[in-house]
Amino acid sequence: MLLDSIQHINDIKKIDPKDYPALAAEIRRFLLEKVSKTGGHLSANLGVVELTMALHLVLDLPKDKLIFDVGHQCYTHKLLTGRRDGFDTLRQDGGMSGFPKTAESECDLFDTGHSSTSISMGLGLAQARELSGEKYTVVSVIGDGSMTGGMAFEALNNATELKGNFIIVLNDNGKSIGDNVGGMSGAFQNLRTAPRYNRIKQSVKNTLDRIPSVGNSMVRTIGKAKDAVKQLLLPSMVFEDMGLTYLGPIDGHNVKAMVKAFEAAKRLDRAVIVHVVTTKGKGYRFAEEDPERFHGIGPFDIITGKELRKKDKSYTEYASEGLLSLGDKDERVVGITAAMAGGTGLSAFQKRYPDRFFDVGIAEQHAVSFASGLAKGGYKPYVCIYSTFLQRAYDQIVHDVALQDAKVTFLIDRAGLVGADGATHHGMLDAGFLQTVPGLTLMSPRDGEELKEMLEFSLHFAGPLAIRYPRGAAPEALYTQRSPLVYGQAEILEEGCDILIFAMGAMVKAAKAACEKLRSEGLTPTLVNGRFAKPFDKQLLRALSGSHKVLVVLEENNKSGALGEQIAEFCEEETLAYRLLNLAAEDAFYPHGSETKLKETLEWDPDGICRRIRETVQEINA
Amino acid sequence: MLLDSIQHINDIKKIDPKDYPALAAEIRRFLLEKVSKTGGHLSANLGVVELTMALHLVLDLPKDKLIFDVGHQCYTHKLLTGRRDGFDTLRQDGGMSGFPKTAESECDLFDTGHSSTSISMGLGLAQARELSGEKYTVVSVIGDGSMTGGMAFEALNNATELKGNFIIVLNDNGKSIGDNVGGMSGAFQNLRTAPRYNRIKQSVKNTLDRIPSVGNSMVRTIGKAKDAVKQLLLPSMVFEDMGLTYLGPIDGHNVKAMVKAFEAAKRLDRAVIVHVVTTKGKGYRFAEEDPERFHGIGPFDIITGKELRKKDKSYTEYASEGLLSLGDKDERVVGITAAMAGGTGLSAFQKRYPDRFFDVGIAEQHAVSFASGLAKGGYKPYVCIYSTFLQRAYDQIVHDVALQDAKVTFLIDRAGLVGADGATHHGMLDAGFLQTVPGLTLMSPRDGEELKEMLEFSLHFAGPLAIRYPRGAAPEALYTQRSPLVYGQAEILEEGCDILIFAMGAMVKAAKAACEKLRSEGLTPTLVNGRFAKPFDKQLLRALSGSHKVLVVLEENNKSGALGEQIAEFCEEETLAYRLLNLAAEDAFYPHGSETKLKETLEWDPDGICRRIRETVQEINA
Repeated sequence: MLLDSIQHINDIKKIDPKDYPALAAEIRRFLLEKVSKTGGHLSANLGVVELTMALHLVLDLPKDKLIFDVGHQCYTHKLLTGRRDGFDTLRQDGGMSGFPKTAESECDLFDTGHSSTSISMGLGLAQARELSGEKYTVVSVIGDGSMTGGMAFEALNNATELKGNFIIVLNDNGKSIGDNVGGMSGAFQNLRTAPRYNRIKQSVKNTLDRIPSVGNSMVRTIGKAKDAVKQLLLPSMVFEDMGLTYLGPIDGHNVKAMVKAFEAAKRLDRAVIVHVVTTKGKGYRFAEEDPERFHGIGPFDIITGKELRKKDKSYTEYASEGLLSLGDKDERVVGITAAMAGGTGLSAFQKRYPDRFFDVGIAEQHAVSFASGLAKGGYKPYVCIYSTFLQRAYDQIVHDVALQDAKVTFLIDRAGLVGADGATHHGMLDAGFLQTVPGLTLMSPRDGEELKEMLEFSLHFAGPLAIRYPRGAAPEALYTQRSPLVYGQAEILEEGCDILIFAMGAMVKAAKAACEKLRSEGLTPTLVNGRFAKPFDKQLLRALSGSHKVLVVLEENNKSGALGEQIAEFCEEETLAYRLLNLAAEDAFYPHGSETKLKETLEWDPDGICRRIRETVQEINA
Repeated sequence: MLLDSIQHINDIKKIDPKDYPALAAEIRRFLLEKVSKTGGHLSANLGVVELTMALHLVLDLPKDKLIFDVGHQCYTHKLLTGRRDGFDTLRQDGGMSGFPKTAESECDLFDTGHSSTSISMGLGLAQARELSGEKYTVVSVIGDGSMTGGMAFEALNNATELKGNFIIVLNDNGKSIGDNVGGMSGAFQNLRTAPRYNRIKQSVKNTLDRIPSVGNSMVRTIGKAKDAVKQLLLPSMVFEDMGLTYLGPIDGHNVKAMVKAFEAAKRLDRAVIVHVVTTKGKGYRFAEEDPERFHGIGPFDIITGKELRKKDKSYTEYASEGLLSLGDKDERVVGITAAMAGGTGLSAFQKRYPDRFFDVGIAEQHAVSFASGLAKGGYKPYVCIYSTFLQRAYDQIVHDVALQDAKVTFLIDRAGLVGADGATHHGMLDAGFLQTVPGLTLMSPRDGEELKEMLEFSLHFAGPLAIRYPRGAAPEALYTQRSPLVYGQAEILEEGCDILIFAMGAMVKAAKAACEKLRSEGLTPTLVNGRFAKPFDKQLLRALSGSHKVLVVLEENNKSGALGEQIAEFCEEETLAYRLLNLAAEDAFYPHGSETKLKETLEWDPDGICRRIRETVQEINA
């Protein structure tokens, strides 16, 4: 095994160049075997095996700086930096992260997970190097999907000001998680598929072959090479128009060609884009054919490509069904996603109502303000974005939706713990930052049926509205009883005294189990399904304050700014006599791991909830 | 006066075309006279007089939809839509807003104030029109400065998908508020100043002259015109590369030329960019020469161009001096602004340390992540952004700074009420949304000297830090006594009992005056300068809880998520016996007006604070 000889950073440089294809094949096999057992991001990682090899061959890590945009495509990088053993615990509790982690290796520079940030961070590093006079190379690797994010454009626009080298590798596979969309995608497509593509490819190759490996004349030669390419009438030169140097397209599965291109790019004294064309899912038929399904996948059977675990019906699926039903009822309902039609369950709506479906690409800011325009034009937009990605559109929610009192509904999936993807993907902040948005209504459903009811409610609601629900399985109906959904009102599920549990969304399930335990111990908790986090049910809290000593607030998010604090302020303001027990998570970033384990740590499982309640009751009685 | 004949929407259409220049001159004189008295946004408005006239001539308002990006350039639009009398109360309490306001006119579609949103919102409207089958024209007017904002690019990228007409007017004056920066700016510059510019201009003019005013052949003709222009080797075709139709450049002070161009653009069945070249400050020498000073200006003398009011030394000026001093001491200090070097006081740093100063353009997201890269490279970045614009970088603060524990300092100017610019510009939310950011430290200085001390503190602080301070005058030293600045510790300014006033930043001044009043009434308040909002001084609150019944929290921001709520939660958690009086503003958007008046309404003036405290004391004693 060639892979056995790669134990440390830069070991790849000892591999005989003729063995590169064999090494790439070994890496693919390794990744496939490991990810099929642990789950993980497969498609993107299979696509960048040779690209990562080439970068490691050209760079001197960790002195040089390599930044992967998003970071889910860092598996080969981890393999080549001495983290082979980590793949057995990939994304597991206490195991290796599926994303770059500074704590794991000095070759990981940032703990990333969101899209379109790598050019900004790389440019910052390159600028620091210019100021300090140090010598190292900075490379940011960014996918064509991530390029649709506005901040990538902001960074490109700024990169022209740099007076030193900075390599931006455009990893162009024609995909976001799903298909790419928009004008830039078309521009890249033109670059890839121009009638003269092969001639250009040949020309670049020949030119690069002639480039001397050292010396100052390099810059001039590259300049000429570029002009030569340009003269071949490359159909689209969007980067050149912006004043950036462009080199490509290069075959992203040809290590030697990329090494030459990167060596050449390193010698330029400005920002340069190296356009590398790769195939997502490369080398594994099922992933090549359906890269979106293998984007992030659970354990699967390599032979059949089928996922091993049968998944229970999720909140996402209820949202998907609910939105379809709204679409059937009202032709003004439109669905908007930012490159996440599959993940958010919008695909079904897209299929049935293609004209009323809009995938704007990785562009959360635009998605939100575009929705505001649609609302102004008389439509009822549903913006479906994961909690952690919605935070990129905070300003637009405030300025373009709430301030306009626009009738836009946000379906916030992955609100709460997400498990294996970790700190960058947990949806722990939206419950807090959305409380700060004046005039926004914020709800959470206790089960799949209630999510559908909330969707029905949203159809007739006359203001900005957000519905947040977590990743994973949803009970269909946690209680068969079901009180009508009324604006700002909570629902009493179990009547008791002394202890009032005010639970939001999916936490109602854990609260129900906790109640059963507590009752078996002789306590008589009241269980309330909060439904509305903003505005919360003040009247109910006032009414129950006489008969309840302890008020437990259960919500799946960080504490800062969220419901528990709002209730605390209310209790102080109205001098209600509750002893408040706020079980939201402390203000922190939480690691990857199983949701079960994470919830135990946070004392969000029924046992933990009971333990915390018992402690409080004992304190009061002491 | 031609202007006298314009009383209602579309009255301009009755003006004889030969009188357009005279009308434009009248409008400029009117604006100059009014704004010199009330203050307002002068430069941008003088630049778009003819552009706005041309749009009003071509469009049928309010059926057609006209959206101004940012919106501070809407004065001529207000004048042409029956709001002439409003200019006497421009930006005053209860008077006409300086920005588009749906409540003022059905010709204002959105209440805007932030940059780079107009293409998204316009595209949403145009898409709604396509779905509904209605017939109207949608025009978004966006400056070349706003084009550097990433969300404008996201929207352009998405606009190529539209199957109907949508006109984006690129109002190109080569300026943000200050000078433009970056690659796109270069691209526009190329478009404007190519050697063959005059020939092109002539060619466009001739082509447009030949375009028939109606009929389907229009589209084809325009197509040909475009090709003709392209054959003249326009040096940069960034929009065409993205798949958008481009028409221009057009002289933005020639009404007839623009009318022809817009009429032509209206007939295309896709998104089209009409590139209009204008001069910021046009027609008023002082504004043309120094458009930044006349961007937003107070009352001034028309003859001399000098501002009438002498301004007291502001927090901004202390920040400016403090940052210079840090730059002198430590060469790793770098300053970053998003097109606001003047407004944030960074100009002085820019002048002394041009190599360590970075204006990234209107690109707050990139500014923050770029800073993170600089920090990783060993530098000490100071990111200077107004509160209301910083909210666009919420995700980057969380993901690229806090999660990385990057040593980035945010200098948040205009945190609190800003007065005349109103709802879109008040900095009322940052105190809330920054509380949700794990690991961020948040401070506020009580006076100019303390702001400088906090800057000194930041130099040696090892994590992400934000210092927020309001617009306007700062006392140099509110108290001569000055206790050392220690992480997480508040400062006791006046010792008393029963009433504890915990005041943040500039509110300490009002609190001090309130204390004097209360003491004259026989009460003995303790006054604390909170200094740190995150983490706040829990130890002090515990220690003083025995001797104080009432805890008053004073902060200049909305209530949701902010310090008062954090303290409420803490009091609940620790069952401290305070009666809490949280004087933060209720969760809402606040209008424009004088800061004095706004503060009275919010009961943030010394009288208001005393009134609220007295009420609470009476309630307790009752």
